[in-house]
Amino acid sequence: MARPVKSARTQQSSQRRKVRRDLAAAALELFATKGYEATTVDEIAATAGVARRTFFRHFRSKEEAIFPDHDDTLERVEAVLLDAPAQENPIDTVCRGIKEVMRMYAASPSLSVARYRLTREVPALREREIASVSRYERLFTRYLLGRYDEHSHLGDEPLLAEVAASAVVTAHNHVLRRWLRRDGQGDVEAALDHAFTIVRRAFGDLPASAGQRAGAPRAVTDGEVLVTVARTDAPLPEVMRAIERALDQRG
Amino acid sequence: MARPVKSARTQQSSQRRKVRRDLAAAALELFATKGYEATTVDEIAATAGVARRTFFRHFRSKEEAIFPDHDDTLERVEAVLLDAPAQENPIDTVCRGIKEVMRMYAASPSLSVARYRLTREVPALREREIASVSRYERLFTRYLLGRYDEHSHLGDEPLLAEVAASAVVTAHNHVLRRWLRRDGQGDVEAALDHAFTIVRRAFGDLPASAGQRAGAPRAVTDGEVLVTVARTDAPLPEVMRAIERALDQRG
Repeated sequence: MARPVKSARTQQSSQRRKVRRDLAAAALELFATKGYEATTVDEIAATAGVARRTFFRHFRSKEEAIFPDHDDTLERVEAVLLDAPAQENPIDTVCRGIKEVMRMYAASPSLSVARYRLTREVPALREREIASVSRYERLFTRYLLGRYDEHSHLGDEPLLAEVAASAVVTAHNHVLRRWLRRDGQGDVEAALDHAFTIVRRAFGDLPASAGQRAGAPRAVTDGEVLVTVARTDAPLPEVMRAIERALDQRG
Repeated sequence: MARPVKSARTQQSSQRRKVRRDLAAAALELFATKGYEATTVDEIAATAGVARRTFFRHFRSKEEAIFPDHDDTLERVEAVLLDAPAQENPIDTVCRGIKEVMRMYAASPSLSVARYRLTREVPALREREIASVSRYERLFTRYLLGRYDEHSHLGDEPLLAEVAASAVVTAHNHVLRRWLRRDGQGDVEAALDHAFTIVRRAFGDLPASAGQRAGAPRAVTDGEVLVTVARTDAPLPEVMRAIERALDQRG
């Protein structure tokens, strides 16, 4: 019994996606040729070959119509976060999450480039895009906040989670914008990976707990990177002894 | 001759600010009582006791009218960046810059709280506010990019500058939002200083040059904080020798 139901659902979902993309293609074409202001919802629906009320079953407004995939992508991003292994660094998880967004743009470069040009010219479309992106950012902030060490209630976690989420989204947007300006040429996913590496080398990771945030010398297991911190106005032998003590704890 | 001219200019500028604030107060009152959609520019001008064309000499649109101080504040922020001492850490400069924005909100708590409530209810006002904030963010990105070590052309500077600027603006917005939700109670400038301390302890500073970004052991002068980084899968004596070499360069 289960198989036909699932198949019907899959068919329904693929039909839904097709209608949304047809409407988006029609909207994009009309906005580009007639202009955004002059285009009506009725014309978009007619060009896509559906009724006006079908349009409103899929989009709340004219400016939403050129972003048909954000809802589905948000769901995929949520799934990445939910399915993340418990031992994964939460920032890694968020980076994997936003890669789903990049893949959505990378899946249709010419469509993404055409839409980017439009959003730069029409403030209403630009603002719609900003609103969509802020949904991912809020999702990441909530996720990072939930992944903080539960014993570290210092009150600053909401701030740090928001800053970390914003850094990931800003890096993503930077890479995406550069790719769109270059007409969607090149491997944008590889560019995103590079950007994450650079940003994390420069700014570090989300601190997982109060202990890690304190910056005290800490021992780490072999193979990791060791960081020691000391004030250098102490005499050299004293600094060296402190470092050696920290290193000895590796044993 | 210079003195009377300057005085006339100051008078003109203070008269200009008064008109802008009168218009803003009128707009805020009308939006709150009649509703944003139902309020016209003519009504705002009439309530403030000026002509319609005077309104348009100060604001391009109805939604701009409740933000009378962003233009002046942007100028003050630019002045902070321009006048910054050459040896100041650029992130410190940007933090001092955005404090000007916080001071603008803190100067009139009840007005700021009333406007915050309105922006949460009216998308057009919310979007106008986002656009205003993005002007500061772009200014900080350009500034940080200009302050990078001129010998470090690795191509990643625009990314790092944008992420750093976004982190500062996100921290500011977080603190501002928390203060507005608490009805503008408490010392928001002190809260902002605390936020900057927390964020920088967690994520570090903007790397000023390629050398600092490489993570190699580096020597610093007495009194500063020394940071050494080494891979711990090297034998302990070797790690210690590397650290000692770095420390020796202090002398």
